[in-house]
Amino acid sequence: MQSTRSSVLVVGSIAFDNLEMPHGTYENVLGGAATYSAISASFLAPTSIVGVVGNDFADSHLQSLRTRGVDTMGIERASGKTFVWRGRYSDDLMSRVTLQTELNVFANFSPKLPDAYKKAPFLLLGNIHPALQSIVLDQVTGPKLIAADTMNFWISGEPRALDAMLKRIDLLIINDEEARELSGIHNIPKAAADIHKRGPKRVIVKRGEHGALLFDSHGVFFTPAYPLEDVRDPTGAGDTFAGGLMGYLARNGEVTPQSLRKAMFFGAALASFCVEDVGTKRLLGLTQVDLAKRLRQFVDLVDHGGPLDI
Amino acid sequence: MQSTRSSVLVVGSIAFDNLEMPHGTYENVLGGAATYSAISASFLAPTSIVGVVGNDFADSHLQSLRTRGVDTMGIERASGKTFVWRGRYSDDLMSRVTLQTELNVFANFSPKLPDAYKKAPFLLLGNIHPALQSIVLDQVTGPKLIAADTMNFWISGEPRALDAMLKRIDLLIINDEEARELSGIHNIPKAAADIHKRGPKRVIVKRGEHGALLFDSHGVFFTPAYPLEDVRDPTGAGDTFAGGLMGYLARNGEVTPQSLRKAMFFGAALASFCVEDVGTKRLLGLTQVDLAKRLRQFVDLVDHGGPLDI
Repeated sequence: MQSTRSSVLVVGSIAFDNLEMPHGTYENVLGGAATYSAISASFLAPTSIVGVVGNDFADSHLQSLRTRGVDTMGIERASGKTFVWRGRYSDDLMSRVTLQTELNVFANFSPKLPDAYKKAPFLLLGNIHPALQSIVLDQVTGPKLIAADTMNFWISGEPRALDAMLKRIDLLIINDEEARELSGIHNIPKAAADIHKRGPKRVIVKRGEHGALLFDSHGVFFTPAYPLEDVRDPTGAGDTFAGGLMGYLARNGEVTPQSLRKAMFFGAALASFCVEDVGTKRLLGLTQVDLAKRLRQFVDLVDHGGPLDI
Repeated sequence: MQSTRSSVLVVGSIAFDNLEMPHGTYENVLGGAATYSAISASFLAPTSIVGVVGNDFADSHLQSLRTRGVDTMGIERASGKTFVWRGRYSDDLMSRVTLQTELNVFANFSPKLPDAYKKAPFLLLGNIHPALQSIVLDQVTGPKLIAADTMNFWISGEPRALDAMLKRIDLLIINDEEARELSGIHNIPKAAADIHKRGPKRVIVKRGEHGALLFDSHGVFFTPAYPLEDVRDPTGAGDTFAGGLMGYLARNGEVTPQSLRKAMFFGAALASFCVEDVGTKRLLGLTQVDLAKRLRQFVDLVDHGGPLDI
């Protein structure tokens, strides 16, 4: 049995993805933001997941998560089908369109935390309705760090619920287009400054293959994405990044400007594996040795060998 | 008088740019790739420039370059008008269209190096016809490093002249779209590997606001662009990057994997100033103190505070 007091708690979507990729179509792939984040965090810290699945969610998927070290006690099984997402990627994998979204059991999901999870020190609110994110916040007791993701759909459709949620979190992790839409400002550093005023003192702006920027009281920090020769499936990379980041913070125990900067690299390293195969396949097969090696590659990638003096 | 044996020699275009920006239209702005590169390199090493200008090129422009420390002895004055480029930027400055290109005196330009320049140890061939780049190579004696830029126009239009030039250089500095067109490969690390086979053992792929990647025998290295709150004019940023990189290498004296990595950051730091005002204005007003400060900001931007161990 895993510890009942988890170090990272991830709340969000668990889904079946149907992925139309240039190299083939993949049906019923285990996906969902919370799934990717939890698997990723689990490499670094004890991790629990809260979400909902339907009758069609095979026990083998739950077993995969548990084998990876994810506590699945918080996965609710509801009557009906699991959330389904179908997307088609462009030939260069740089863009995608959503072809189908079937919420199914996710439509009536209201996250209810097992008592054992309520003191989770590191809480990651995946991209769900901001009112549901707030419902989770009503249930937790003094987490050390609350991070959340959101998306354009909620930014345009649920601005008040989103505003209320933003006031209660420490770290917002969104992509560049979302940062622009949320702030109404194109320039990313200025957009981040605007978002700080809405609540979160720390903002991470993800830019896909172009890396991620952190804006906090310490200034600005950048982590590149690893330049890979073979990218198979970008699905879930951003969620994997967020999960790895939270996992490192939980492992470290304290959130400092320094630990947050290191955490960005751990997130980026895990995300770099995510994209190497379809769905969660690469992550589920990953070893600590693989991760340690990629982290060293990341250090080399930006190591300018000392001070830059003139 | 400056030393007659310059440390960096830049050969390429000197132009008047007409820039239609969202914040105004700017006519007859001193520009051209060689201009930006030479000004940038001059912060770090003695620099000379070879190019052609017309009767309309005011002595005050030459004086600005000389004040900056650029040796202008190699600027040929021909009868006619200076090269003119007119471009219009999108509102977000992320894209631009060329509205007009008047080659003028540049149409008949064949670079002729003053004897004093022929032993220049660091040679930067700006984006001109690859046959002209080769003509420059015929004139130099054993440079320590030959770097060159090119563009889609030559990649599609002059493939044989380009191939011949590529075999003779040490470092190709191009943007991501050019790397893709040259190699026929979308993936950047794979495109760089293909370009290595064509000659240059080192390839730098510039990605504008997303930074630059170096591929050499030591592996892959990444430098971000600095996340600025105010970007006024991206014109010349890539050339400024290349000039700063060569300037640092010349200042350092030796090309090693380590010096090349540091040079990437010097190039990026200088490029980050270039975009802060229209044309060369910010660069011409820059001090060594400004540059030293920006370099420290760059160190902070990627400083993950030690090993990334798990």
